Amino acid sequence: MPTDIEIARSAKKRPMSELADALQIDAADIIPYGHDKAKIAPGHLSSLKAKSDGKLILVTAINPTPAGEGKTTTSVGLTDAMNRIGERTLLCLREPSLGPCFGMKGGATGGGQAQVVPMEDINLHFTGDFHAITSAHNLLAAMIDNHVHWGGDSGLEPTRITWRRVMDMNDRNLRNVVTGLGGSPNGTPMETGFDITVASEIMAILCLARDAHDLQERLERMVIGYRRGRIPVTAKDMKAVGAMMALLKDAMLPNLVQTLEGNPALVHGGPFANIAHGCSSVIATKAALKMADYVITEAGFGADLGAEKFFNIKCRQAGLMPSAAVLVATVRALKMHGGISKEDAGTVSYDALERGLANLGRHIENLKQFNVPVVVAINRFTSDTSREIAAIEAYCAERGVQVSICTHWAEGGHGAEDLARKVTRIASDTPIDFQPLYPSDMPLFEKIETVAKRIYRASHVDAPASVHKQLERWEQDGYGNFPVCMAKTPYSFSSDAKLVGAPEGHALQLREVRLSAGAGFVVGICGDLVTMPGLPRRPAAEDMHLDHLGLIQNLS
Amino acid sequence: MPTDIEIARSAKKRPMSELADALQIDAADIIPYGHDKAKIAPGHLSSLKAKSDGKLILVTAINPTPAGEGKTTTSVGLTDAMNRIGERTLLCLREPSLGPCFGMKGGATGGGQAQVVPMEDINLHFTGDFHAITSAHNLLAAMIDNHVHWGGDSGLEPTRITWRRVMDMNDRNLRNVVTGLGGSPNGTPMETGFDITVASEIMAILCLARDAHDLQERLERMVIGYRRGRIPVTAKDMKAVGAMMALLKDAMLPNLVQTLEGNPALVHGGPFANIAHGCSSVIATKAALKMADYVITEAGFGADLGAEKFFNIKCRQAGLMPSAAVLVATVRALKMHGGISKEDAGTVSYDALERGLANLGRHIENLKQFNVPVVVAINRFTSDTSREIAAIEAYCAERGVQVSICTHWAEGGHGAEDLARKVTRIASDTPIDFQPLYPSDMPLFEKIETVAKRIYRASHVDAPASVHKQLERWEQDGYGNFPVCMAKTPYSFSSDAKLVGAPEGHALQLREVRLSAGAGFVVGICGDLVTMPGLPRRPAAEDMHLDHLGLIQNLS
Repeated sequence: MPTDIEIARSAKKRPMSELADALQIDAADIIPYGHDKAKIAPGHLSSLKAKSDGKLILVTAINPTPAGEGKTTTSVGLTDAMNRIGERTLLCLREPSLGPCFGMKGGATGGGQAQVVPMEDINLHFTGDFHAITSAHNLLAAMIDNHVHWGGDSGLEPTRITWRRVMDMNDRNLRNVVTGLGGSPNGTPMETGFDITVASEIMAILCLARDAHDLQERLERMVIGYRRGRIPVTAKDMKAVGAMMALLKDAMLPNLVQTLEGNPALVHGGPFANIAHGCSSVIATKAALKMADYVITEAGFGADLGAEKFFNIKCRQAGLMPSAAVLVATVRALKMHGGISKEDAGTVSYDALERGLANLGRHIENLKQFNVPVVVAINRFTSDTSREIAAIEAYCAERGVQVSICTHWAEGGHGAEDLARKVTRIASDTPIDFQPLYPSDMPLFEKIETVAKRIYRASHVDAPASVHKQLERWEQDGYGNFPVCMAKTPYSFSSDAKLVGAPEGHALQLREVRLSAGAGFVVGICGDLVTMPGLPRRPAAEDMHLDHLGLIQNLS
Repeated sequence: MPTDIEIARSAKKRPMSELADALQIDAADIIPYGHDKAKIAPGHLSSLKAKSDGKLILVTAINPTPAGEGKTTTSVGLTDAMNRIGERTLLCLREPSLGPCFGMKGGATGGGQAQVVPMEDINLHFTGDFHAITSAHNLLAAMIDNHVHWGGDSGLEPTRITWRRVMDMNDRNLRNVVTGLGGSPNGTPMETGFDITVASEIMAILCLARDAHDLQERLERMVIGYRRGRIPVTAKDMKAVGAMMALLKDAMLPNLVQTLEGNPALVHGGPFANIAHGCSSVIATKAALKMADYVITEAGFGADLGAEKFFNIKCRQAGLMPSAAVLVATVRALKMHGGISKEDAGTVSYDALERGLANLGRHIENLKQFNVPVVVAINRFTSDTSREIAAIEAYCAERGVQVSICTHWAEGGHGAEDLARKVTRIASDTPIDFQPLYPSDMPLFEKIETVAKRIYRASHVDAPASVHKQLERWEQDGYGNFPVCMAKTPYSFSSDAKLVGAPEGHALQLREVRLSAGAGFVVGICGDLVTMPGLPRRPAAEDMHLDHLGLIQNLS
C-alpha cells in the first residue's frame, strides 16, 4: 500500500495557469512559488468585492481520539466530490505547522486519495507565511526589549511585559527562559519564553483580518505589557507595526494549491485551536466565497471547540453566514468514546459503539443551537462492519439527521459523492438562519458560562475572584464586546481529557483569562495549557531524509 | 533625488523567462518565486558539469569606514559594464540578513543606479533561504535538548553542549539565555544563547558545499558538544541531519534575480564575515562560471579579512582559480584612513588622503601575495575633486597598479565601463597563477601566524596556553588540514578598531579558537566577538511602513 507521500508525489498536478483560469484569476494576479503553489495578488482580491457569495460549509468532528477522525481528509474528499457532481467548489484549509512534522503528529494535508498537494512543500516551508509571522512576532519582541534597554519613555514596566517570542518548532526547553543575561551591554534580564508560531497572536490576527488595513489596526491594538497603574502598552506604542506590516505583506495573501483530483484549494493561516480560534484565514474564505458556489472549510479539534469558535468568533467577526455543517466521525473513534482503548477499537464491540454514539449525538444537538443544518459523515475504514454502519445510520435516523458513509480515503472524491449530494441538498433547501450562541454585548463571564453550559453541558463555571475582577476590568477598558475563546482539552466535553462520551453536569474550572486585543477575543483557560509542544522520545525527524533523487522520505 | 528603493521600484524588470534564455536554462528548470525571483533547479546545475569555466573576478575593498566604500555597488556596476562592453558576465552576491534591515545598516543590494532587484524582497524574506537555515539550525537544537530530556545514550554532557540557537533578528537580549526552566516536564536548565542566522555554521556550510551530498556530509560532521573524555558528539549522532536536509532542500539552490540594467545575478547565501568566511555560495559561483565568461563576486569586509578568506577558504575548498581582484575605495574613506572624522571626510584634506593611501597600498601588496592581479576602483562621489583623484592615480601609478574612476552609482554600468575594460584586459593578459597564502598541511597555529604576519603585518601572535593546547588537540583529532578563519575587527589591520591606515608591528591577541568541523575551518577569535547584534536607540524599523498602495516605505 502506498504511503500518503507516495500518493501525493505521483499525482499528476494541473498547471497553476489552469487553476487560475478555472477561478477566473488573471495570470498577472497569480504570484508563483514554484510550479505548483501560488499566492493570489491583492489586485484580484479587491476586484471580487462586487460579486455575490457562494455557500459556506463547515467540516467539523466529534471529540478527537487517538483513532483519528479524518476531518481534513473529509474536507478534501467532499470538495472533490462536489466538483464531480458539477458544483463549483473551493476548499479552504489551514496551513500545517512545521514543528509537529518533526514530532509525531505529522502534517495536515489529508490522507490516502484525499490530499492537497504538493504535500511536502505545504507541510514544510510552503510559501513562507509562518516564517513571516515568526519574524514579525520576534521583531516586536526585540523592539520591546530594545525599548527597555535604551530607557524608552513609554513607562513600560519590564516585569510586566507579556509579549513572548515564537518559533515554529516543538522545543520544550524554550517554554520558560531567562534572557538578557551577561551584564548591561547584553540587555536586561527578563523572565519570558517561546510559544510555537501557531500560538502567536499575530497568527490569529492574520486569520481574522479582512484586509491590510484591518490587519494593521489589529496589530496596533495588541497589548504587549503594562505601564504603571496597569495601563496597557500596545505594539503601536513600540512603533513596531509598520515594519511588521512590511514583513507580513505577502503572508496575508491566500495560497493556491490543488487537491489530488486537481480542484483548487486555498490553504492559508493556521492558528492554534486552544488559545486561538483554529480556523484558516478570513481573507481566503471571503475570496473563496466570491470565486465559487460552495466553499468547504474546517475548524480545529471537535465541534465543541472548533465549530463553536468558527461560529462565535470567525463568522461573527467576518460577517459570514454558514449554510451547513458536516460532522465527521469514524466507527473506531465512536467506540473509543464508548470507553474502549485504541488497541481494541478495531475489534467489534456494539456496546462500545452504542455508548460512544452519545458523543456524536451531543455534537449534533450543539450544532443545531447555531441554526446550522448538519450532515454526519462516517469516514469508513475497510474493517468497519455493515452492522456497525447500520447502528450509526439508525442512531442518526432517530434524530432526523442525514448520514453519509464515505470512502474518499480509498477512492478519492468518488467515495464522497453521496455526502456531496446530501450537503448540496440541505444547503439549498434550508434557508440560512445562522446565529451565534450569544450576543456580543453579553458580559464576558456570562459568555463563558453560556459556552460551558450549552456546549460543554457543565453545571457551572468555577473561577477564582481574580478572574472575575480581570474580566470586569477588561469590560471597563472597552473589551466587553469581544467573544470568548476557550482553551480546554479537546478530548472531552469536560475539562478532564479522560472523560469521553457525553459527560454532563461537571464543573468547568476556569483557571486564567488572557486578552488578545488585536485578535479581538478573550481567552478562557481551563486546565493546563501547552503553547510550546515538546518532541517525543523518538521524534519523526530521526527517520526523515532526502533520498538519492533528492526526494524527502518519511515525512507523513 | 530618488532613494534607492524608489530607483529599484521604478526599474523595468526583464521577465524571468528572458533571463533564463540568456543563461540557456530550460523554463522547467526555473523555479519561480513571484515574477521576479527564481531558483535554479538541480537538473540544470548537474547538466553544467561538462562545460568549461569562465573567469572569476573578486571585488574587495580597503578596510571599511563609516564613510562607506560601495563594494556591492561596484560589483553590480562592474557586472553591468562588462555586459555593456560585450562580455557575458554573471554577478554572484550574498543574500542580505533580515536583522540589520531593522537596525541601522540597511539592506545589501547595492545603491543608486547599481542595484539588484527586487530590492525589498531580496532584503526581506527573499526565497526563504535564511528561514530554512534558521529552521534547520533550531531543529538540531531542539533534538539535542530532547535527547538530554529523554536520557539519550550518546553520553553527551548537558554542560558541554556547544550548539546554540539562531534567529534572523538583531536581538541583544537573546545573546545569553537560560532555557529549560519550570521543572522537569519543561526540559533541562541550560546556559546557552542565540546568534543571528548568518552566524550559523549551517550558513557557512551551505555556502561551502559543492552539492547535496557534500552538504549532508558536512552537516553530519558538525560538532554539537562533547561526551565524557571530551570526545566530540556530532549532528549525525543526534540523528538530525536527514530532517535538516529536508528543510534545506530548496535553500541550497541558487537564486536568480537581475541588476537594474537587466543582467542576471545569482544572490545566494550570506555567512558572517567574522566567525565565517563571508562569501556567497560555492554552488552559485561554480554554476555561474559554467554559464558565463566572467563571474563577478564579492567578499565581506576589507581585503585583509574578506579577500584572505575568499582565497584561503572558499577558493581552496572549492578548487576555484580567481583571475583578478578589484579593490574598491572612495576618496572619503581614504581620508578617514588618514585620520580625519566622518564629518570632515567631505572636506578637502590632501594630507589625510596621502596618509590614508597607505591602507590602499597595503591591500594591493597583500593581494599580490596570492598571485592575483589587482585593479583599483575608485567609487567616485560628486564632491571628490580632480586633485584628489589625481593623487590616487599617481599613487597607484607609482606601484604599477591600474586604477579606474567609477561613476556607476550615478550612471549605472556606463560609469564603470573603463573599469570593465581594465579588468577584462588584466584577466586575459595575466596567466592564472593563484595560490593560497599557506599550504593545508601547515600546523594550525602557524597558519594563524602566517595570516597575522603577512596580511595584518603583526609582529607576533599572543595566545594563551589553552589555545595552543586546543589547536594541537584538533590536529591530533584530524582537523589539522583545515584553513583558519580569523574573527577580528574589520576596521583595522590590527585588532584595535581605531588604528586606521596601515599599522604594523602590533601584537595580535588571539583570545579563543573554535572548531567549525562541518564548514571545515578553525576560527581564531581576536578581541570581542558579537554574533548577535543589537538594535540601536532608534531602530530603522520605527520608520518603516506599508503605504496605501501596499508598497514598503523607508526600507533602505
